[in-house]
Amino acid sequence: MRIARFDDDRIGVVVGEGIVDVTDALELSAGEWPPVGMNRLIRDFALVRPVLTQASTQGLGRPLSEVTLRTPVPWPNKVIAFPVNYHDHGREMQAQYRADVQGFFLKPPSSLSGAGEPVVLPAVPGREVHHESELAIIIGAGGRDIPRADWQAHVFGYACLLDMVVRGREERVFRKAYDTFCPVGPWITTADEVGDPAQLGMRLWVGDELRQHANTRDLVLDIPGMVEMASAVMTLHPGDIIATGTPAGVGPGTDGDTIRINIERVGEMSVDVVQGTNGHTEVFARPYDPPIVKQH
Amino acid sequence: MRIARFDDDRIGVVVGEGIVDVTDALELSAGEWPPVGMNRLIRDFALVRPVLTQASTQGLGRPLSEVTLRTPVPWPNKVIAFPVNYHDHGREMQAQYRADVQGFFLKPPSSLSGAGEPVVLPAVPGREVHHESELAIIIGAGGRDIPRADWQAHVFGYACLLDMVVRGREERVFRKAYDTFCPVGPWITTADEVGDPAQLGMRLWVGDELRQHANTRDLVLDIPGMVEMASAVMTLHPGDIIATGTPAGVGPGTDGDTIRINIERVGEMSVDVVQGTNGHTEVFARPYDPPIVKQH
Repeated sequence: MRIARFDDDRIGVVVGEGIVDVTDALELSAGEWPPVGMNRLIRDFALVRPVLTQASTQGLGRPLSEVTLRTPVPWPNKVIAFPVNYHDHGREMQAQYRADVQGFFLKPPSSLSGAGEPVVLPAVPGREVHHESELAIIIGAGGRDIPRADWQAHVFGYACLLDMVVRGREERVFRKAYDTFCPVGPWITTADEVGDPAQLGMRLWVGDELRQHANTRDLVLDIPGMVEMASAVMTLHPGDIIATGTPAGVGPGTDGDTIRINIERVGEMSVDVVQGTNGHTEVFARPYDPPIVKQH
Repeated sequence: MRIARFDDDRIGVVVGEGIVDVTDALELSAGEWPPVGMNRLIRDFALVRPVLTQASTQGLGRPLSEVTLRTPVPWPNKVIAFPVNYHDHGREMQAQYRADVQGFFLKPPSSLSGAGEPVVLPAVPGREVHHESELAIIIGAGGRDIPRADWQAHVFGYACLLDMVVRGREERVFRKAYDTFCPVGPWITTADEVGDPAQLGMRLWVGDELRQHANTRDLVLDIPGMVEMASAVMTLHPGDIIATGTPAGVGPGTDGDTIRINIERVGEMSVDVVQGTNGHTEVFARPYDPPIVKQH
């Protein structure tokens, strides 16, 4: 099943080239604040799945081309991200560490955007903003201390994710936190439709240029390992998102570009890149190369 | 006004040594999932303030000693934290950077705990877990690109915050993300009761030993600057929390300790430290001192 969020906080099931609105059938309140309807749908999925199935087979779909796709889970408890989780990306960045020895970082939910929304570049003159193509895991059943053998019981589905970043050596989280720096979509494809997530081809183009081309079989820390490590530290909640890391081929996105990401059996989305006027901070007004951060 | 969350997701107003339950008067649903009642109270505060005032003057209070205080905002959009934001702490950590040139990082909402709950140390043999005492800002009106002159219109209130961390050089966010590593409380004291937040004495004891003693006047990046910098990057939402940084005097908390933090005009809380059995990860099974992280 492919579950999308669209227009003004509506939820729908994608069938072919159409989308069937199931917001009312699920008794969800579109437009409630904060927007946590999808969190509840994910938590209650076993219960509401028949409603979704019935609505999507009987309902009248609207063409996908007529709706604006939003980010599927706009207010998760957290967005977890694993750095340097493909060997070839580690080599291109001359990184001296990998995800399995360093752990994860976080992106703010406010950075999430959808397949129908542009990436807005902040006004940070002299800096490049790079695309990182990633497979996103959407957590279903929450929990703490999940053994790697149990990972499948906790994964609700998958999506494409772009982890956008201002290159530099300041706090990584800061450079990755801008609004629209975490497009997720085009929808959530439930785990049963994806099958083995360790054999997914992933490609990213900027315009017609293929920049990133990899397979999730080359992850350093695999998906069971990520679920295990994240839940060793933190209680996971339904709707939590894990950005699994990017392979080699990262590069700049600039005003007017279109970035397209395709992940086998998960989906494809294209987002426009536009130059914004806000986002200036004194941090990026300084030289590009401050001393390497020694963390504490 | 002092607004607390307690027991099973109840909300109350603290009056003297008592607490008046206002959950029903506000038509909030205790126990809803996810728990976002306090986010709504903060967003609608101008509207509901008369209800809170009336309930707290007419209601029958329960002794504070009979309730368990929980973290005031358990599901914020984000918890923002500014590293190395007091000069003396920068010197003790031999840091080569400061908040005003590096930006912020994030803590996961799942790490939030309350004044009535213990800090649970993970099973990470050979590592120290340190306390960092901090003033927390609770955001009221949200927004993007908030000029420093407008900061006051966006601050709802303040609280005491303990930023707990496993010392090491792995990803800072990872080392600070454990469940219970972000006690906030004992409640939110609204901004009108605190006055100028740039003149607040702050002290932290472990047992009877005074470890941290500072004043918010010594912040590197001040509170208007933090609101400006965070909102230059991210849309702030009602209930967002900013951990403003810790002064010198950080040190270990161990099993059986009680950590007490007092911030002038804001409040005081004491939390117990207990050794837990979970939280083991392969990251902390490695030597203490991996290469310094070069971020990208």
